[in-house]
Order: sequence, then C-alpha cells, then structure tokens
Amino acid sequence: MFEYGITARDGRARTGRFHTPHGAVDTPAFMPVGTNATVKALTPEEIRETGSRIILANAYHLYLRPGADVVEKLGGLHRFMAWDGPILTDSGGFQVFSLAPLRTIDPDGVTFRSHIDGSIHRFTPESAIRLQERLGADIIMCLDECPPHDLPDQDMRQSMELTNRWAERCIRAKEREDQALFPIVQGGMNPDLRAESARILSGFGSPGYGIGGLCVGEEKEQTLAMLDVSVLHLPEDRPRYLMGVGTPEDFLTCIERGVDLFDCVVPTRLARNGHCLTWSGRVSFKQAQYKYEQGPPDAECHCSCCRQFSLAYLRHLFLAGEILASRLATIHNVTFYQEFMEAVRIAISCGTLKQFHERFLSGAGRASLLQSHG
Amino acid sequence: MFEYGITARDGRARTGRFHTPHGAVDTPAFMPVGTNATVKALTPEEIRETGSRIILANAYHLYLRPGADVVEKLGGLHRFMAWDGPILTDSGGFQVFSLAPLRTIDPDGVTFRSHIDGSIHRFTPESAIRLQERLGADIIMCLDECPPHDLPDQDMRQSMELTNRWAERCIRAKEREDQALFPIVQGGMNPDLRAESARILSGFGSPGYGIGGLCVGEEKEQTLAMLDVSVLHLPEDRPRYLMGVGTPEDFLTCIERGVDLFDCVVPTRLARNGHCLTWSGRVSFKQAQYKYEQGPPDAECHCSCCRQFSLAYLRHLFLAGEILASRLATIHNVTFYQEFMEAVRIAISCGTLKQFHERFLSGAGRASLLQSHG
Repeated sequence: MFEYGITARDGRARTGRFHTPHGAVDTPAFMPVGTNATVKALTPEEIRETGSRIILANAYHLYLRPGADVVEKLGGLHRFMAWDGPILTDSGGFQVFSLAPLRTIDPDGVTFRSHIDGSIHRFTPESAIRLQERLGADIIMCLDECPPHDLPDQDMRQSMELTNRWAERCIRAKEREDQALFPIVQGGMNPDLRAESARILSGFGSPGYGIGGLCVGEEKEQTLAMLDVSVLHLPEDRPRYLMGVGTPEDFLTCIERGVDLFDCVVPTRLARNGHCLTWSGRVSFKQAQYKYEQGPPDAECHCSCCRQFSLAYLRHLFLAGEILASRLATIHNVTFYQEFMEAVRIAISCGTLKQFHERFLSGAGRASLLQSHG
Repeated sequence: MFEYGITARDGRARTGRFHTPHGAVDTPAFMPVGTNATVKALTPEEIRETGSRIILANAYHLYLRPGADVVEKLGGLHRFMAWDGPILTDSGGFQVFSLAPLRTIDPDGVTFRSHIDGSIHRFTPESAIRLQERLGADIIMCLDECPPHDLPDQDMRQSMELTNRWAERCIRAKEREDQALFPIVQGGMNPDLRAESARILSGFGSPGYGIGGLCVGEEKEQTLAMLDVSVLHLPEDRPRYLMGVGTPEDFLTCIERGVDLFDCVVPTRLARNGHCLTWSGRVSFKQAQYKYEQGPPDAECHCSCCRQFSLAYLRHLFLAGEILASRLATIHNVTFYQEFMEAVRIAISCGTLKQFHERFLSGAGRASLLQSHG
C-alpha cells in the first residue's frame, strides 16, 4: 500500500513515487503546512491548483482544537477539510517541545500545558499513535523527544535512546493498516548518535523515515554533516522526510544529500507578511517601489494571482489589511514552491541537478532553467 | 448607454434591467460592498459565482488609499481589481460625515481629516466627480451632505438645499460619457423636504437616483414613510438606489415601495464575525451546538461552502482564527443574498410578492418559496 519506487538518480539525489491510500506523491516533494486542518488562506481546490499533492497537518494543534473526537466524528481529516489527497500528520512532539510553556518528560511520555489555555495534557507514544489514528492521515509520525541542539553528549544519548524506545512502542501501538508510520532520526549534532539512531530505526523496516532536530539554530555545516550521516544509515529504498525545512536553497542542498520529503511554513507565512517568492528572489510587495507597478509578482508564473493581478494591487490590499492580499500571495508562493520542486525532479531525471543548482543560485529564470534540460 | 427597462410590476414593486458599459444588471439587485476595491475575502471569480452582477466601491477609501492616481495609472477600478462587471462608487459624502473625526462644511465643499492618519483633505462637488471619473466606475454618485436625522427643520432644509445645489454642480462638472451620475435625495424625516428634494432632482433627468439619509437611527415607520414620499416624487422610469440598506426583511419592505438597488456590508461583515444567513434565519456557527454538526450552513444552498464543508469545520476554523472561515462564510452569505434577490425577482414577475413576503417571514425554505410561483 505504501510502495516507494525510485525512478531516477543523480548523485545521491533521486526522484521517486510514494503510494498512499489517497494517491501517489512524486518526490522530491514539498508539503504545504495546514496546521489547523487548513493551509492558511487556501481552499482545498486552490491547494490542488498550486500543484501540491500532499499536505501536512499538526496533531498537537488538532488535539487541542477542535479535538480528535470532532475530527473523528466528522469522518477523519480528509473529509473534515475536504482534501482528498494524501495527508501527513506529525506526532506533536516538536510542538510540545517548542510551543508548550511547560513540559515534563518521563520515560513513559511527556506532560505539557496547552499554549492556548494552559490546561494540562499528556502524550505517550501510545496516545500519540491513537491520536493520529483518529485523525486519519495517510502518513503518521512517531512521538520523539526534540532536545536543544547543544545538549551535552551524555544527555543527547539519553534523549536519542528515549526517542528510539518510543518509536518501538509507537510501532507496537499502531493498529490501522491504511497509515504509514515513520520513525524519526534524532541524535543532535553528534555523528555517532545520529548514525546509531538511524541504524536502530532502520531495523524496524518502516515504510519511510523522518529526520528531526535539524535546522534548529545550529550552523549550516553542522546541519549538512548530520544530514549526511543520518541518510547514510537509512535504507536506500524508503523515502526520507527532513522535518521543517525550508527554502528552495535548502531543498537543493538537502535533495543532493538524498532527502525526498519536505514541509515548511515559509511560503505561506511569508505570503501573509507581504512577500512573494520568485525565481529571481523575494518580492516584498508592500514596498513603496511597487506603488504603480503594473506587472505581477512573477511574469513567468502561471498561478491565478500572477495571471490577474498587479503588484500595485497586492500592495494596496496588504496596506489596507485585506484578506485577499494573504490569499493571492499564498497561492503564488505555494505554486512557486511546487514549480520549483517539479523543475528539480526534471533536473534529476536529466542528470543535471548540479548545473540546475548553480544556475538557480545565479538567478536564472524558470524558462531558462527548464530549457537547459531540453 | 444607461437604458433602464422595466420588465414586470407587482404593486409598486418592479423588475427591470439596467444597462451599463460593463454589462446589464437585473433589478431589484443587491450590490456587495467592496470598500477597498475588494469584496472582503473574495476573488472576482468568487464574487461572480455568488450571482453578484454589480459591486460597490468607496471613493472616500480609495481616495485615501491607494489614491486615485494609482487606480487611474493601473487602468481604472475594473482592471485594478480584475472585475469586469459593473461597479458603482459612492461619492465619499457618507464616509466623510460618518468616519472622518473632524469635518467642516461650507457652501463650496467639505474639509475633513483622514480616519487613517489625520491628514487634512477637501472634497467639493467638482473634486468628488473628478475623483470618481479617475476611479472609472459605471455608476457614480453626487456629493451629498449627510446630516443627523434629528436636525431641526430649518437646518435640515438648508442641508437639503446644499445637497441639491451640489448635485447641480456635480452634473455640470461631469465629463466622462461612459459613467451614469446619480443625484441623492435627502431631507431627513420631513416629508415636505423629501418631496421637494426628489422633485428638484427629478428635474435633472438623471439616469438613476439615490435615496440617502435613511436607516441612520430613526424609527422603522419613519424610514418607510420617508421612502414612500421620496419614491413618489422620483421618475418612474429610472432605477432607485436605497443607500446602505440592509437585511432581506428590509429588502422586501423597500422593494414593495419601488426600490431597485441596494448595498450593504451586512452579509460580508456577519460572515467575518461567524454568522451565516439562511432561509430559516441566522446560523451563528461559532456556537458550541455546532461542535459535531456534519451538515452545512444551509442544506438548500448550492454555494461552494455548503457543497463541501460542515458547520463543525466552519466553527473550528473560526475559533482557530483561520482566514478560510471568513472566506467560506462570505461566499455563503453573498450567495444567499443573491439567491434571495433572484427569488424576489421571480415573485414580482409572477405577481406573488405579497405571498412571498409573508411566507418568507414565516420561515418557509427556498424550495417551498420558489414552488409557490411554479
């Protein structure tokens, strides 16, 4: 049911297709973030039009609001939000460790306060799986501990071992057959711990693997070194999901290291803050220079924003606090991310990813980048 | 170019078709309000899908932000906001008298402070027309003074006479031939002043007329009495636009008195505050009773919100502060207003408006109301 087939390779980068009960996903893939069972500002139809095939929702947020009972009674996440494509939910681990104002970890689980109303809750590996089974996503994640990246080695080992034990318990607790459960590699910035974590998790024979605890404040070099060692010890024939990353530049360096799945709030959040992402860089449309600009955010883009609206109009909407500004910029940014990923998949298929990377960084436009594969 | 043909009558109510350079409008018609050149939360395509054929924009707001120069350089309102249907702009009179923190009226015009930044501005009849010519709507409005409804008779007469003199100046100042200019009947709650205002303005032979200064805090009986006398002295063969009104119940009582055009922020504002309007009343979807509700806001409605989403999902989106809640509820509410207006037009054509009115107030659903004409 969760078959993953690699279709092309270019160095360590690869393209593939991951099958889920709600359709297949071509990798490398970007998953827009739909924290509260809505990709902020978009309808499911618009998400589809951006080229997105799989989206992410947050188990932690949905657990607190509206509650798993509501989503379950309304027929699960797909029906609740009227999105019939694949969905991935994270376990809530990252949110518990980053959002909750208070949390206490013990070997059995984590107790935390809601960031919404301060009420006290508890996740265990078993309850995190039960929660995600009630939400009903296609891909679900093991509960992991997300420690600060600069923990001393001894503490980091304990944390990694706890995450691995929790992964085992998650796998045992899982009952639904129509969901793929991904364990998550941790181990901080210690290559030995990363390698050990990846090796142990690989032994579980899971349908895919998450890589967590990266891009959390450490140096870029460290990120890439830890990514290298994590990927090296993960099975070749399973998709690898680098959690919470990032920008197109990040995608390229990580795809070149064998990553297949990404999620990030960057395109949607930047849109709501007045920025469009394009092949030639960021367009901050609230700036005065766009007051009379008749052109769209990106003349090369085919999204419904760029086809119809000027930067002058977007600027006006943004300054007037109009919802439509967030909508149009989000449509554009997510479309750009998906068009970027499609171009990367083409480059890998043609064996020209290295040139694509170099030319992208030098500011080449979409048409020119695609032409180089022709 | 601005031909108005009456197609059916039922008592004083009538259906008609008003032709503009951007298409025809079937009356009675409801115009959604697009204050800042955007009907809040909707794209032009979505506005069209609600059944709306004409929208309203605010000259006062657009004058302050982004400025008439921006709209003009971007090709006028239609191109700026990518709406190719008819547009009406008000003159800014109502906003100057209701929003501006300070204003000084003299015989030549009105000086006011921006509600945005306190800067000082001035509108004269001539500048209000020039502004609306630069914005480029199909229907533009004369600058009027909008006095409190409880002004003493002598002051109210002076105000009405000023508005009439300004109307004359507006008509003289107008240069563009592809815009219809509507004068506005004033006169407060004094039937003699209302009659005099309407008679004098009728003498101008304008393509349509606004009725202002109603539903501004007075008793309902007074509203209707003033509406009656205003309509009585306006030409039969020109559309009558009752400004800023209102609810479906208001529409029925006013259409029965000969009104053809309406605008109001009610459906869009209520949507953003968590209310859906339906044939059987208001559904405040943020209420706890809808926590598990699988049904849509209105099972009889064909809008894209009701076709796809549950009240439980709308409630969740609203409580989570998600933009999609405003979008979906706005689509529904404006669709409901347009479906309501269409049903009213059918009732007038069938000569059954009185029965329609009674049965609507008794809570009959759409199907049942339409059947009664069959």
